[in-house]
Amino acid sequence: MAPIIFYDIPSTLPINAWSPNCWKTRYALNIKGVPYTTEWVEYPDIEALALQIGAAPTGTKDDGSPSYTLPIINDPNTGKVVSDSFLIAEYLDETYSGGNFNTLFPSNSKPLVEAFEGGLVGALSPALPLLLSISAPVLNPSSKEYFRRTREAKFGKKLEEFSALGAPRTADWAKAEEGFAQVAGWLAKNGNGPYVLGDTVSYADGVLGAWLIWAKIVTPGQGVKDLSTWQDGRWDKYLKDLEPFSQVY
Amino acid sequence: MAPIIFYDIPSTLPINAWSPNCWKTRYALNIKGVPYTTEWVEYPDIEALALQIGAAPTGTKDDGSPSYTLPIINDPNTGKVVSDSFLIAEYLDETYSGGNFNTLFPSNSKPLVEAFEGGLVGALSPALPLLLSISAPVLNPSSKEYFRRTREAKFGKKLEEFSALGAPRTADWAKAEEGFAQVAGWLAKNGNGPYVLGDTVSYADGVLGAWLIWAKIVTPGQGVKDLSTWQDGRWDKYLKDLEPFSQVY
Repeated sequence: MAPIIFYDIPSTLPINAWSPNCWKTRYALNIKGVPYTTEWVEYPDIEALALQIGAAPTGTKDDGSPSYTLPIINDPNTGKVVSDSFLIAEYLDETYSGGNFNTLFPSNSKPLVEAFEGGLVGALSPALPLLLSISAPVLNPSSKEYFRRTREAKFGKKLEEFSALGAPRTADWAKAEEGFAQVAGWLAKNGNGPYVLGDTVSYADGVLGAWLIWAKIVTPGQGVKDLSTWQDGRWDKYLKDLEPFSQVY
Repeated sequence: MAPIIFYDIPSTLPINAWSPNCWKTRYALNIKGVPYTTEWVEYPDIEALALQIGAAPTGTKDDGSPSYTLPIINDPNTGKVVSDSFLIAEYLDETYSGGNFNTLFPSNSKPLVEAFEGGLVGALSPALPLLLSISAPVLNPSSKEYFRRTREAKFGKKLEEFSALGAPRTADWAKAEEGFAQVAGWLAKNGNGPYVLGDTVSYADGVLGAWLIWAKIVTPGQGVKDLSTWQDGRWDKYLKDLEPFSQVY
């Protein structure tokens, strides 16, 4: 099969990839085992790309017009263009099955994976403003300006005020660590396998991996306790187990 | 096989069963498809029963001594006594598989079911004090006294003050309905099958069914909007689809 084209947002980091929603798709493509290539698109260029290739919008702007986000995939084998990480994962399972392809949603686990992601976002929520504010520094200039402008408009304050360095930031991060203690409790039910579903890798790992790798990528040097120390190294081990699925092609 | 003995808490209702944690086990036994009989145990008699049959405690009292709760099962086929609804479901899958037995956790979905339950409890949390306070009236005298005394000690106020009739109660219930709109969104991912996992019944249904049937049983006449009207009848339909698994044997 011809490689799927995967549109992701670049950064100044050596591995380029950083966006959590795009990481979900990267994990999904790697777990699924389909060939793909990445095309890197800066924030201000996403809308023009989406309109050009006929990608569906994923939301609505304040003025009521459609909004477009990455990830998007363009599959030359079927001619399909798909937006939204969850819809992309569903598309991959529907289109590519059997043989060497892994199943992203075994036993039609979609509703449970949605609940799982709800739980993860809830656990990480005290640190979300912090993670957003410290994501800007890793972006290239045009994306950085766009990101700052749109996020500051949404929150009504400067990025630097989302989670101030020092006691407020330490407290936000400690709350997220507590939330992830609960997530570790869920995972303890998996029979000690490396993945969320034990020995079977699935899209649940794409989701958990994406939130963790984002936090891991943007926090160094930002005055917070290293994620590696949370739950006695539980998440570093997890990300290491996921490494075969975190290549950036 | 000989019937498993399932210890549940009785009530004044014609169907007797009401306790959400025990409903999880009832659904699990019915979904699994194992024969069982129910022995009804009032709250003040649970500890003596547990000590007599050697059931493990499920928590610790304020004074540091072990505490015992239902559900408990006693399986004469294996000699095993198991406490705690999740551990019982795990035991049933480990002990009875193949043939006509359904699988409670397909694809080792335990961590996702834990996350799912976390999400459900979160969605229902604004109404939990309300549901507790209106559960007392359905209990038999000895359990009613025990329930009132222990719950009032825990919350530091009278049951009647947990969620006062009128505006506060209406608001609590409306928040829970909102939470369940999110749960309905998760379920919409299941390909329109009747169960959480689409066409496959699983322990996820035991968990969702248990919380819903509890709410359905204790709310009539309590000044709240009928659960049947939430999400255009979504949950009444769901409970109806689960009826083959809600028998009280």
